[in-house]
Formats: sequence, structure tokens, C-alpha cells
Amino acid sequence: MTAWNLLISDLVDAALREDIGPGDLSSLVLPAEARGEAVVFAKERGVVCGLAIARAVFERVEPGIVFEPLCEDGHVVTAGMRVALLKGPLAGVLQAERTALNFLQHLSGVATLTARMVEAASAATMAVRTEEGEEGSDALLPSGKRVRIVDTRKTLPGLRALQKYAVRTGGGYNHRFGLYDAVMLKDNHLAAAGGVAEAVRRAREQVGHMVKIEVECETLAQVRDAVAAEADVIMLDNMSINDMSEAVGLIGGRAIVEASGDITVDNIAHVAAVGVDIISLGCLTHSVQALDFSLVVDVSKPSIRQLAMDNGQWTMGET
Amino acid sequence: MTAWNLLISDLVDAALREDIGPGDLSSLVLPAEARGEAVVFAKERGVVCGLAIARAVFERVEPGIVFEPLCEDGHVVTAGMRVALLKGPLAGVLQAERTALNFLQHLSGVATLTARMVEAASAATMAVRTEEGEEGSDALLPSGKRVRIVDTRKTLPGLRALQKYAVRTGGGYNHRFGLYDAVMLKDNHLAAAGGVAEAVRRAREQVGHMVKIEVECETLAQVRDAVAAEADVIMLDNMSINDMSEAVGLIGGRAIVEASGDITVDNIAHVAAVGVDIISLGCLTHSVQALDFSLVVDVSKPSIRQLAMDNGQWTMGET
Amino acid sequence: MTAWNLLISDLVDAALREDIGPGDLSSLVLPAEARGEAVVFAKERGVVCGLAIARAVFERVEPGIVFEPLCEDGHVVTAGMRVALLKGPLAGVLQAERTALNFLQHLSGVATLTARMVEAASAATMAVRTEEGEEGSDALLPSGKRVRIVDTRKTLPGLRALQKYAVRTGGGYNHRFGLYDAVMLKDNHLAAAGGVAEAVRRAREQVGHMVKIEVECETLAQVRDAVAAEADVIMLDNMSINDMSEAVGLIGGRAIVEASGDITVDNIAHVAAVGVDIISLGCLTHSVQALDFSLVVDVSKPSIRQLAMDNGQWTMGET
Amino acid sequence: MTAWNLLISDLVDAALREDIGPGDLSSLVLPAEARGEAVVFAKERGVVCGLAIARAVFERVEPGIVFEPLCEDGHVVTAGMRVALLKGPLAGVLQAERTALNFLQHLSGVATLTARMVEAASAATMAVRTEEGEEGSDALLPSGKRVRIVDTRKTLPGLRALQKYAVRTGGGYNHRFGLYDAVMLKDNHLAAAGGVAEAVRRAREQVGHMVKIEVECETLAQVRDAVAAEADVIMLDNMSINDMSEAVGLIGGRAIVEASGDITVDNIAHVAAVGVDIISLGCLTHSVQALDFSLVVDVSKPSIRQLAMDNGQWTMGET
Amino acid sequence: MTAWNLLISDLVDAALREDIGPGDLSSLVLPAEARGEAVVFAKERGVVCGLAIARAVFERVEPGIVFEPLCEDGHVVTAGMRVALLKGPLAGVLQAERTALNFLQHLSGVATLTARMVEAASAATMAVRTEEGEEGSDALLPSGKRVRIVDTRKTLPGLRALQKYAVRTGGGYNHRFGLYDAVMLKDNHLAAAGGVAEAVRRAREQVGHMVKIEVECETLAQVRDAVAAEADVIMLDNMSINDMSEAVGLIGGRAIVEASGDITVDNIAHVAAVGVDIISLGCLTHSVQALDFSLVVDVSKPSIRQLAMDNGQWTMGET
Amino acid sequence: MTAWNLLISDLVDAALREDIGPGDLSSLVLPAEARGEAVVFAKERGVVCGLAIARAVFERVEPGIVFEPLCEDGHVVTAGMRVALLKGPLAGVLQAERTALNFLQHLSGVATLTARMVEAASAATMAVRTEEGEEGSDALLPSGKRVRIVDTRKTLPGLRALQKYAVRTGGGYNHRFGLYDAVMLKDNHLAAAGGVAEAVRRAREQVGHMVKIEVECETLAQVRDAVAAEADVIMLDNMSINDMSEAVGLIGGRAIVEASGDITVDNIAHVAAVGVDIISLGCLTHSVQALDFSLVVDVSKPSIRQLAMDNGQWTMGET
Repeated sequence: MTAWNLLISDLVDAALREDIGPGDLSSLVLPAEARGEAVVFAKERGVVCGLAIARAVFERVEPGIVFEPLCEDGHVVTAGMRVALLKGPLAGVLQAERTALNFLQHLSGVATLTARMVEAASAATMAVRTEEGEEGSDALLPSGKRVRIVDTRKTLPGLRALQKYAVRTGGGYNHRFGLYDAVMLKDNHLAAAGGVAEAVRRAREQVGHMVKIEVECETLAQVRDAVAAEADVIMLDNMSINDMSEAVGLIGGRAIVEASGDITVDNIAHVAAVGVDIISLGCLTHSVQALDFSLVVDVSKPSIRQLAMDNGQWTMGET
Repeated sequence: MTAWNLLISDLVDAALREDIGPGDLSSLVLPAEARGEAVVFAKERGVVCGLAIARAVFERVEPGIVFEPLCEDGHVVTAGMRVALLKGPLAGVLQAERTALNFLQHLSGVATLTARMVEAASAATMAVRTEEGEEGSDALLPSGKRVRIVDTRKTLPGLRALQKYAVRTGGGYNHRFGLYDAVMLKDNHLAAAGGVAEAVRRAREQVGHMVKIEVECETLAQVRDAVAAEADVIMLDNMSINDMSEAVGLIGGRAIVEASGDITVDNIAHVAAVGVDIISLGCLTHSVQALDFSLVVDVSKPSIRQLAMDNGQWTMGET
Repeated sequence: MTAWNLLISDLVDAALREDIGPGDLSSLVLPAEARGEAVVFAKERGVVCGLAIARAVFERVEPGIVFEPLCEDGHVVTAGMRVALLKGPLAGVLQAERTALNFLQHLSGVATLTARMVEAASAATMAVRTEEGEEGSDALLPSGKRVRIVDTRKTLPGLRALQKYAVRTGGGYNHRFGLYDAVMLKDNHLAAAGGVAEAVRRAREQVGHMVKIEVECETLAQVRDAVAAEADVIMLDNMSINDMSEAVGLIGGRAIVEASGDITVDNIAHVAAVGVDIISLGCLTHSVQALDFSLVVDVSKPSIRQLAMDNGQWTMGET
Repeated sequence: MTAWNLLISDLVDAALREDIGPGDLSSLVLPAEARGEAVVFAKERGVVCGLAIARAVFERVEPGIVFEPLCEDGHVVTAGMRVALLKGPLAGVLQAERTALNFLQHLSGVATLTARMVEAASAATMAVRTEEGEEGSDALLPSGKRVRIVDTRKTLPGLRALQKYAVRTGGGYNHRFGLYDAVMLKDNHLAAAGGVAEAVRRAREQVGHMVKIEVECETLAQVRDAVAAEADVIMLDNMSINDMSEAVGLIGGRAIVEASGDITVDNIAHVAAVGVDIISLGCLTHSVQALDFSLVVDVSKPSIRQLAMDNGQWTMGET
Repeated sequence: MTAWNLLISDLVDAALREDIGPGDLSSLVLPAEARGEAVVFAKERGVVCGLAIARAVFERVEPGIVFEPLCEDGHVVTAGMRVALLKGPLAGVLQAERTALNFLQHLSGVATLTARMVEAASAATMAVRTEEGEEGSDALLPSGKRVRIVDTRKTLPGLRALQKYAVRTGGGYNHRFGLYDAVMLKDNHLAAAGGVAEAVRRAREQVGHMVKIEVECETLAQVRDAVAAEADVIMLDNMSINDMSEAVGLIGGRAIVEASGDITVDNIAHVAAVGVDIISLGCLTHSVQALDFSLVVDVSKPSIRQLAMDNGQWTMGET
Repeated sequence: MTAWNLLISDLVDAALREDIGPGDLSSLVLPAEARGEAVVFAKERGVVCGLAIARAVFERVEPGIVFEPLCEDGHVVTAGMRVALLKGPLAGVLQAERTALNFLQHLSGVATLTARMVEAASAATMAVRTEEGEEGSDALLPSGKRVRIVDTRKTLPGLRALQKYAVRTGGGYNHRFGLYDAVMLKDNHLAAAGGVAEAVRRAREQVGHMVKIEVECETLAQVRDAVAAEADVIMLDNMSINDMSEAVGLIGGRAIVEASGDITVDNIAHVAAVGVDIISLGCLTHSVQALDFSLVVDVSKPSIRQLAMDNGQWTMGET
């Protein structure tokens, strides 16, 4: 991603100031000239994400630190695999460590969860396709994938752009970034505007020609109204599998269809099988389990050296 | 918490700007004069946290919104319970909704996870006390609680102060806030300084008299050195239950004892039973499941009204 | 616009600090207790825009100032018409005056220029419709207007959101806000990606389902490719009237059609007559003539009082 | 200008963030390794201004971009002349392009307008001098120029320092930068303080010895009072040519004389001929027409290559 | 001072954040509902300065605090005199206390030191006038005071505007605020430009007509050159009393004369007696002794109540 | 100190912007190509502090400036000793000069005052030890120094972290940095909480296990209560020498003892002799006399060259 520094410099500074405050007390015990070599390695299996940010954190604390990534965002790592090497003044390495890992473990957590959901949905779709003996129409989403896993606006305050980057890293796609880049008409908008038809008409009249309009539908009647109003995207909100299936039929390719609400790794197969184009999941960004990484300084201990030797890297396609 | 605005105003602004950007497109469909009444309610059981921030979010978007909390941070809510009422211009309510809920659901998630861990550890301790027929020494932590659950620096970038507030709200305590307010001597510090004794001596020599010094020990030998060096706090890092037990004996009340590493809701009872003073848990802040809340505008639907009637509030002590 | 304060507070502060620096020297000659009443009036005909910002400027300098707008953004004013009344500490009024007027005169300039272009294009279209005796298809832009005047990204640094607001105030519409909310594939993108078909395919594959894709075409061949690639919007870049006409035919309603390049108040009628949906104009924001306003304190002079008496307000529809 | 980075870094960041937001979508279609060479050239005649800022924009987006200016701020360019060469990652070049050009086209517009006004006034003065057969007194402004064109505080919010730099680049001079660096006593100050004599006395008493005091005069009586009060500078506000002429005689070199109000390229000759020292023009910064520049990537097309060959640079003195 | 909030809000926030960080720990011991009344009183004689800032500090921490000043900036207080009353939530009062007093004690220190220098210089001048039996010329500084005490740019980083306000509060005047509002040609400028004449000529040619030019002279020869070059202000830098006296004669009222360098409360009388217009003192802002203030909560103790009863306020003119 | 840039970059920017504003006017007289070599030297005896900040100031203004420190923070310099050499564009050197020296002179002033107090206290202690023929207990402060001089929160707004760094540079130690890193229970906290015992109990219950608790005692009775409550640190506030002596006996090594209030260079010996561990002094940061430094460009003058030859550096231990 270009313009990366522009995007993350304030966030990196805020995170470091939050941790270092008016100064690190513990590094006062280090010899002034102490330098260190360190390795960052994964402690469990997952999709790595955030290496450029980790690097920015180390370099902001101490420009003399050299950070060498050993893989790229999106690679799958397993326990013990090294993801980066570091060299430089020891105090700087130790001061940046926690902040860098905090970014890395969270973003990798998002990417890993996304990859798991993509896999669950894809597998299900495969099965369905095989059964039905057809490929499905790629007209609206000519991406080769039958269903897309996307994020929502249920993100952690201040971290949205990074979290959405991590979703892409994990194989997902981004829904709108905020209130400003697309129209989503929810129940309250529909009620206040006097129904689906009028709400879509007003939106079309007010917003620019580059803006898509999505309507959140809770009933099949609303779905019919949304199709009639020529909504670009129709969300099936918390519908049963049967209703979703009927809605897909009603829409008949005249709008992109998004399923949302109470979808988990266990039922995502069924939702995907209905034939929706998009499945949106709040959990990708609001309920993330960190992927565990560790930084070890001075790799002279055999056990660590061994890890390094065994190290390999797999791209996601190889998992 | 006083000075609350000082603490959160920048974060609230950043979160809102992230979501609203150059302007909300969807609210253009609303009648200009539209006003709304809304209720925020919980969709699952947990400890609520973040009401003051949610309120700040609504008021920042639109000073004309009146936000009335129906309970306080720390209260336990169950599915369907209302936590706040809102009145004001509808566009403002809808623009602030997602950002306010993003704070609320995450901080309540932290508080809820903390409460669960406190409960798990306390129950265990109770059992142990009953068996052993003694109260334990409260010399170092005269709080009446035998073990404290504390957080770590494994927080989400930019959200540390709020997450640590949520940990306190859930019944936990805070470890140091950053590198600046206490000394923690880890393996790398110890190695570079030439051992526990010398590292503690240097720290004591360099830092102010208001600063406590903790030593992270992986072995019982290190524990002995830390006691001899008069460390204020000794961390037992990833030790077995047996080693921890022996360490507590070795220390004999001469330092506060903290257990850390691989502690989960399942084994926390055993760790607590060892007699440590402090159990620190990274998961409280790095792997949080959001607590689900919803905002419904215009409470004219019977189901919502019914919720309101049945509403009650329980303090944490009553759970 | 809700969330207005969030949007403009930093800009208002920056503008005031730029003018007041470490303090206004001239107001030191005023008696400390001096208060003033003032009127802001237009000195030429145009569309007023920026009253809420002007108000925010005065209130930021001195919360004790009462600013009463006498019309709304979008109203047409003529020379001598009052747009706002002010009361409060004289020093505050004089300190805020220039900054408030700088916003008002520029944004009103943008709105006025936009209105002029909208009028020129509409008049032309009317004529064409009458001649051709038909209403035109409103399928893609069911707004009742046959052609939309839109802005570009050729804005003044730091002022984009306000300028785009002023374009809407003047009766225009907004193109994308930046590089982040829509895809525009220009000659360089097309060349680097290997042609229109491949560029559109890659964009569709990479970006979210809420994002529209526009292709900038310099030739009719590119227009054909863009239609085939199912671009959402096709820009006819610097084409002759004849080519544009042919392009509109080729596209046949399968994409929104935008005309751009070297379009002025003099030739906009011809472009509109071609039947494009959208005409984009960089001049709306990059070459703006300020609309002249003046602030007069203490309206005791007959000439000013007279102005006030004659004051009326016309909405844009009445011009 | 030294300390340039200090002055513009925040503005450059704000402008880029305004355009790039959470990320550029269109450059996703580019091959990751794509690099580009580009040329920036003028599309019309004018005074170039803002090259250092354009450079800062490109380097901020992508430090790997090499920006080589081919002329200096203040040079006169004609249609087709190249002003800078660029090399670097293509995505970075395309992301920075619009923001860099937005600065360049506006500042060059300011410089060009200023140069036009300076020329109009100078030519007029030349003529007058020749007729009158005398050189005029250079006592107050020993700069060799008989009249100076200066800017005002009627600038675009946030852009004042840059606009004032552009005025200097175009051959003009700067009036005060804000309310903080000189005293300007306007009608409202004079009225509130009880007249010219008292207002100047108070200003002299209050402000530091490094601060000049200007009095805005609408009548010859005020001019006489201002001379008597020993004002440093006297502004003739919206006076007729006759009154201005009489005022210059009344002042007799005892103060710097500034003419202001309703001065255009058409009548500036007459005002200059009156013998004022300074002519201030709000239009230099509030009503600016952008000077058109274009960036073309990959100069393999003959037409562009040809432009480069014909390229020359003229300093302003040579126009 | 109007626009006061604009000027100090960032500084107040920075100061509070520096002290409160992620939260005040000590106020956790207070009952949540505790409210307090407090009095701020002086503990030694001096000129009070900074009450508006102190008030802003308290209100920023807790809008519910009512701060009532009992005197105005510039008043002379003596030990025990009350300067303000406070009421509000106790936690807020205690959290803001130190930051508010830090501003108050430093600015009052600056004002007090300034007043002492003004008095020392004035007394000396009085004596001289009586001896010489003449009033002196007020032509250049018609303020009624024969010599002005002014500050320099030797200020504390971040506090310049406030310190310069405090100098004015203490009866002094401000020299230029920075490098941007006046020209000061020092030895290095003179040397690089090729002497006084050329340096002044260049400055006059480059800078606006509202800018004064001062030349720093170390020798009488330079003084002669500066007079010839028509410098607005001439600084006598570190000259002997004899040389200064001769310089004043040489200048003969054709420029404002400023004395600078090694001037203390002990020798300022002699410098003033020479007849210079301005004496500039770096110590006013770089070597300030805080004026001691204290805040006492709950004025129920007799000793404090007694202080309140004895309280009076003297304006500076009455000392 | 690592992470130094993170700590000071905002402060350096604020200080430079405060001085340079929209641009330095005086350097316009310099030839564009002028370069300079300069030396920074001390004009009086003291402890130098702030070299890294001075360097950052020069480099921020002009990256082309090379700043070579000739000694380190903490070294003792005498009049005429050089502390740094500079080379680079002359305009940049002159623009950064004042801001760099403002930091240097103030921080060196803090370090020098601290060193003087440390010396005064140490000398006294030496004498006492010799008389009493004993070494004293180093149990609580095993630093080898019998008494520590520490700072307070009475700092200059915005400069606390730097001032506290300067205190350490001068041989002192830091008290808590703010309200957030330690508990200090003052008279108002004690009163509101219902006495020493209850206040300490509440604090212990509320705050984390890494936080020390200090009680401010005005009477011996309070000292007894604080010992009983197991406070970590006991402050003897404004006590007589006799009371302090009795208090030290009462405490008997069970808490760290801090003396505070009305302690000066003249009586610090007596306080130290009492046997307290810590002496805190507000004057170290609130009443600082700047240490005089000067920057001379082009060291071709013999007198300066001579200074350079005689230059030597002494570490603090050698004074």
C-alpha cells in the first residue's frame, strides 16, 4: 500500500506515546552501548498481517534499528516460524517491542479470522456447486469467487483503516469505510423517509453519481420494493435460510445481494449455499483473538536457532 | 472519573472522523426536522462499560441530543435490558450510533471478560480457603481479596487508558500503564545488565523513590536472587504450579508475587490456589469478544416497550 | 449538515490562528467594555454559502457574540441585502470579521459560479428538449434534471469538503470526494494495467461491492471497451461534440455518461444538448471569484438602515 | 525560503489526507512493481510558483520518488514548457499528482495575477514619469520602484502564508500577515476610540516600538488628522483620483501612502500615477484563476518529447 | 484579551495532560460526591498575572467548577491576600490545582520582575529629570514614560505569548514576537550582507511597508551608519554608559534608541539616565522566580478566614 | 535517552513555530548561498544540559546543518568553553539559533541549580557522617548516597519531561511525574477520606500493585498514623528540624522519609543532617536562572579562536 506512512504515522506515534509516556524507566539498567539482534516469531498458526507497521514502530523509536521482514503480509505462518529479524540499539528494540507486537498480533488476528471464514464459506460453496453441477453466474461479481466475505463498520475506534486492511489481507473484502462513501438505508432511514421507494428516490436525488445505494431489508416485501426502486445492493438482514433463498430468486441478478446477521463459522456454509453475493461479518473486527507472536533478543540460544533453521514460508494458496 | 473529557475528547473525535469523514450521505434522505427517541439495550449478559464515552460521542455529533444513562458502568445487564435513553435530531442520533456502540461493545467486552476471570479465580480461592481453614495474610494487599486479576501492556493501540478503565470496571486491577510508571526487568534486561542482583541495583540507583521494581523470573534461582535484591514485586513467568508454589514459599511475603503466562479461565483456579497475590492476563485486552448492544429508534413497537417495563438493574455484587 | 462542528472546528481554528497569531494589536485601542452591533450584507448578486461557518468563527473568538442569520445557505442575495446580524463585545466582532468573511466570500463564490453553470446548462437543455419535443430518459438519473453539473478533485488544499458543500449549495452535485471513495481509471492506469478490459476487471476484483468504477475515455474505441467491461460510469474526456454524441449513442444507457474538459459557460449548452448525464467542471473550485460581502458595525448610519428596510430574500427557485 | 518544511508539512499532510483518505482505490489495478517517469508542464503562460511544495507532496507520499525541478519559482512559463521531471513508483506518482498540482496551479495563479498587476501599475508609472520628466522621491521606499503592489488579509483560510509567498514570487509585496504584526485602525476602531488622534495615541501607548501604525482614511479631514497624529502609514480608502491626489500632497512624504478599494487592472495606472507608495489588492488572493498544469507519465509520445526539446526558461525580467 | 481561548486552549490541554496522564490516582480515595470550596491566595508580595488561564484550567478539568477571581491581572498582592475563590467537585479542584498554580506562579513571577525593573528605571529617570530640570522629548514615544522596559525573544519554549502578556501586565512593553514581525539585523546579518548600509537597503527592498527595521550596533561607527541608512530603531548592544550617551546624541531623535546587554536592577538607573527610549531585558522571561501562591480547600480554619477578612486589593498605581 | 525524537518533536516544532511564524524576515538580507560555521559556547560556569534538543532544533529548521556536540549533557563548563560546533546554510543557523539556545540555557539552568543543591546537601551529610562516625543505613535507598535531591510537580507548563531530565542531569532524582504514576495523599485527601488510616486503606484498595503511596504529614501524630498504615513514603511537610528529627526516629526505616517545604541552599545541610532519605525542592523547576550561552558565527576572530584552543571538558565528578 503506497502512502502508507501518511496513513499510519499518527497512529504509530499515538501508540508509542501511550506506552513510553515521558520515558522508559526499565532501559535505564542497560549499558548505554548495548546493541541487540532479535527475531520475531509466531507462536501459533495464522495469517500474518502488520509487518510494515511493526517496522514503522521500531524505526520511529530509533532510526538506527534495521528491521528485515522474512515474509509478507498474507503469508500463513505456523508456531515457531520467524517473521522478521531486527538489529540495533538494545534500548530501542525493547522500547518498541510491545507496541510493535500489539499491532502485529491484533491485525494478524483479524486476517486469520477472516481467512477462516473465507475458507468455511468457500468449502461450503464448493460442495454446493458440485451437487448442483453448475458454476453459478459471475455476472455481478466477476471475481471467480462465488461469495465474498466482507467487514462492517463494527470496528475498534481509531483502528478502522488498519482492520479493513487486515480483512483484505485475510482474503476478505471491504464494505463501505464509513458513512461518507456509500449509502446504506436502514430501518430508521426507511421509516423516516416514508418507505423504501421514497428513501431510495431521495438518496438518488441527493448523492453523487459515483455513490452506490444499499437497502437493508428485513422482509421479502421490502426486498420487492428495493428491487423496484433499483437499489444497487440489497441486504437480507437476519433472514431465515428459506427467506434468503426466496429473496435471491426475487432479485434475480438485478442487484447485488448481501446476507448479514447471526452468521458464524458454523452456519456460513448454509448462507453461502443460498447464492448470495456477499456475506458481511461484524465479528471480523469487533471480536478478534490476537495471534500470538514473540520477540527474542540475541538468538544464541539453541532452541531459537533451531526454530530459525526449520523456518519456511507458505503463501495462503498453499495452505 | 474526573477530567474525563480531557482524556477522551481526542479519541472520540478521531473515532467520529474515521466514520463520518467529509459527511454522512445516508442521512440526506431524512426530513430536516426529523427528531427521534431511542433506546440502547443489551443483547446478551455482561458488565456494561463505556456509558460516559457513548454519551460524549452523541453530544459531540449534535449538542442537542439528550443522553440519559439508565445504569452505571460496572452494572451487570442481561439480554433486553435498557442501558440508556436518547432524544434529539434523528440525523445526529443515526450518525453517532455506530461509533458510540463500537466503544460500548468493546469496553463492555473487556469488563465482562475481566469479571468472568475474577469470578473464576475468586471461587477457586474461596474453595481453597475453606479447605485450609485460614484467611491468608493481607499484609501486602490489604484489600480483602486474596488474589487480584490485573491487565498487561498487551492492549489495542490507542485504546489503553480506556481498556484499563474497563478492566477496573470489571473488578480487575491495573498493572503498570506503560514503560514510564514502574520498572519491569525482563530476561533481556537481566541478561544485558549481568544478572538479577546488578539489574535491580542499577534500577534502584537510577529511578525515583516513588517507583516500584518488578523482576520477571523464569526459574526458582532467579526468584531467590530477586528476593535477595529486595525487588518490590516478583513475577513467576510461565512456571508450573509446583514451581509457583515453591516460589511463594521462598518469597515468604517479602515481595508481592505475580503469576503470568498461559493462564486461562480453566486453570486460573489452580494458579490462585497457589497463593500468589496477582494474576496478570493479556487476554483481558488483546482478545476481547464484543458485548452486543443495539440502538432502536422510536420505541413504539410493543416488543421494545415490553423490554423497558421488565427492565431492572443489578449491581455486580448481586450477580 | 449535522456533525458540522466536527467537520469545521479544526479549520476554523487554523484560520483564526493564522490571522490572530499571538494576539490582535489593533483592538487594544478599543474601550474594554465596548460592545457592537453589526450587519453583514452582500455587495453583489449571488448565492450565499457559509453562514454556519461564519457563525462558528465569531463564536469561537468570543462565545458572547450572538450571530443571527437572516437567510439560509443557497438563497440568492443582491447588492445591499443583509445576510446576518451580530451583537457582542466589539473587540471580538472585529477580530473575527475578516476570517468569517474570508470563508463566506469564497464559499459563496463557489456556489454562485455553480449556480451560473447549472443555469447555463439547464437553459440549453430546455431549448433542446423543446426542439426535440421529448423529455429524455430519466432511467439512470431519475432526479428530474436532465444533466448534472459536478465538481472535481481540483480543489484548494484543505478546503475540499467545504468547497464540495458549496457546489451542492449552488445546485451542483459532487463527484467522488477523493481517491478513496470511487475508482477512476485514467490513461495511466489503463496503460499500466494493459487496457480497459483488464483494468476494469482488476478493479472489480480488488475493490468492495459498494464502489463504482469509472473509465476515462479519450476515444470511441475506449468507450466501446468500457461498455463491454461493464464500467459503471464512462467519462468522455476532451471529446468533440460529434464524438460525444456518438459515444452517448454507443453507450445507450448501459452506463452513466460524464463529459469533461474545456467546458465553459459559453459551450456548456452544446455539451448538455448531446445528452450526457453529467458535466464535470474543475473551475467550480479552482478558479473562483469571491462574492463580495461587508460587515458594518453600528447601523446608525441612514444608508445602512435603509438597506435593512429594503431587505428581502429570494430562494433560488425565484431567481 | 528556509524552515520551509516546518511551514508546510502540516498543510501538505492535511491536503494529502483530504485526497487519499483511508487509501487510494484506483492504484490497486497497477502492477505492484510498476514505476513511472513523468513530466509536469504548463498549459498556459504565467509565473510558476509552488515547486518546493509540489516536491514535498510527492516525497511525502513516497520517499522513493525523485522530483527534479526544471525552473524556479518566479520564472515565466508558456504553454508546453516543462517545469519538473519525476521518477519513481507509479502508484505514488499517481496518488500525489492531483494534490501537488492543486498547490501548483493555485499558487502560480496568484503569482501570475500579481505579476500582471505589477506590470500594469509599472507601465503606467513609467508613462507618468516620462511625461512629468522627474524620477520621484524614493525617500520612503528606496527600492527603486515607485509603487508597490501588496496583498491584504482577504486570503483563503489556511493558505495565507503560501498565498503571500506567491504574491512575493509574482513581484508584489506583503502587507501585514495578520492582526498581530502591525496596527491598522479602521473606521470602527476610530469611532470607538473617539477619533483619529486619540486612536493613534492609544495604539502608540499600547503597542511595542517595533510596530507600525496605519490609519484607514475615508476623507481628507481624516488624512490631515492622521498626519498630525504621526501615523506611520495612511490608507486612502475608496477615494476618488482627485482626493487621492490631494491627499498625497497633504501628506507630503510624512507617512507612507497606501491606496485601496475598487482598484482593477484597468484603473491601476491612474491610481499609480497619483503618486501613492502602495496599492493593496484583495483580488490577488481572493479571486484567483488557476494556472493550468498537467502531469504526463511516460514521455514516449513524440508530442511530449517535442515539448521538452523546445523547452526554455525565461526569468521574469526577460518577459 | 479577546480570543483568549483560542490562544491558550492547546497550552492548557498540554499542561493538564502532562500532569494527569491516563488519570489521577490519588483522587480515587475521595468520596464520589465530595465537593469543595477553596481559596487561592498569595504567599508573598508581587503582581498577579494569569487568572484567566488558571480559570481555564479548572473549567477544562471539570466544567462544574465555579472560579471567581477576586482581583485582576496587574494588581499588586501581598502575602495572605486572596486572589480567587473556587467551588465544585473536590476531585476536579485537586486535579487542576497544580497546573493552574504552575501557570499563575510563573506568569506572576514575570509580571513582578517586570514591575520591579520598571520601577527601578522610572525612579532613576525621575531623579535625573529633577537634577537636569527638564522633561525630555516625548516625540518618538509619546506615552508619558521616558523609558520603556521591553522583553526579548529569550523566552521559555512554548510559553512566549503568555510570558509577553505577563511583561505587559507588569508595566513593560513587548519587543518583536518572533522572527516574523520585525527585522533585527545582528552582527551576522551585517557581516554577511556587507555592512549596515547594504543590509538595511536589502531589508527595506524585501520586506513589507508595515515592517520596522532595527540594527544592532556594537560601535559608534555602526550607529552612524545606521542613522545614515535610516534604520527605524538602533540597538546599542553592550555599550558603556559613555558610548551610549554619545550614541544618543549622534542619533538625535532620528531613530528609536534601544539599550541592551548586561543591564540589571542595579545599573538600570544609569542606563535610563542616558536618555535611551527602550531598555530590553532577557531576564524578564529567561530567569524568573515564581511568585508563591497556595490553594486551600474548605476555608473553615480561622487563620484562612482571617486572611479573607483582611483582604484588600491595590492597583499597581497605588503601590 | 532513546525514543528522544518521539518525546521532543512536538515541543521542538511548537517552539520553532512560535519564533518563526509565517517566516523569518531578517534572513532575507542574506545571500542565498551564504553558509556559516558557528560555535556555541558557555558564558558562565554550570552544568550543560539540552544538547540533543539544540541539535534537533537546528536539524528541524534545515536538515543540511551539521551539529557536532563537543561535550555531553551533565558536563561542567566554564565561561568561554565551547559546547558545540555547527556548519550549514547561514539562514538556517540564524533562524534556529534563538530557539536552540532558549532550550539549552533553561535546561542547563535547571541542571546547574540541581547540582548546587546536591553539592550543598552532600557536603553537609559528609560533615555529619564524620562527626557521628557512622555510615547510615542504605537499606531503603541502596544507592550509596545518603540523601537524594528530587524535583516536584511545580514545573513550567509543557516542559515537565525536559525539566525532569535536567534534574537528573544535574545529579538529582525525579519525584513522581504527575498525578498518574504514584499516589500522594495531601491534607485535603486525608480530610475528605476521614484520616490517614482510611485514606491509605482506600488507596491501597483502589490502585494497582505497582503504585507507591506517599502521605504528606504536617504533624508527628500523622507520621505515626502513616507508619501504622504502612505508607511507602512519608513526607514531612514544613516541619521544624526538631520535629523532622523525631519523625525520622519514629519511622525507623519502615518507610522512605521525604522532607519538603522552605528548604534552601542555606538550610539544606541541616535538613540532610536529620537523616531523611529525600529532599524535594520546587525551586529546581519553578525558579530557574538561565545559564548563559552564546552562538558566534565564523570563528575567524582571534578572541573566539583562542577560546576554542583553551577548551577542555570536565565531568561532574571532577568539579
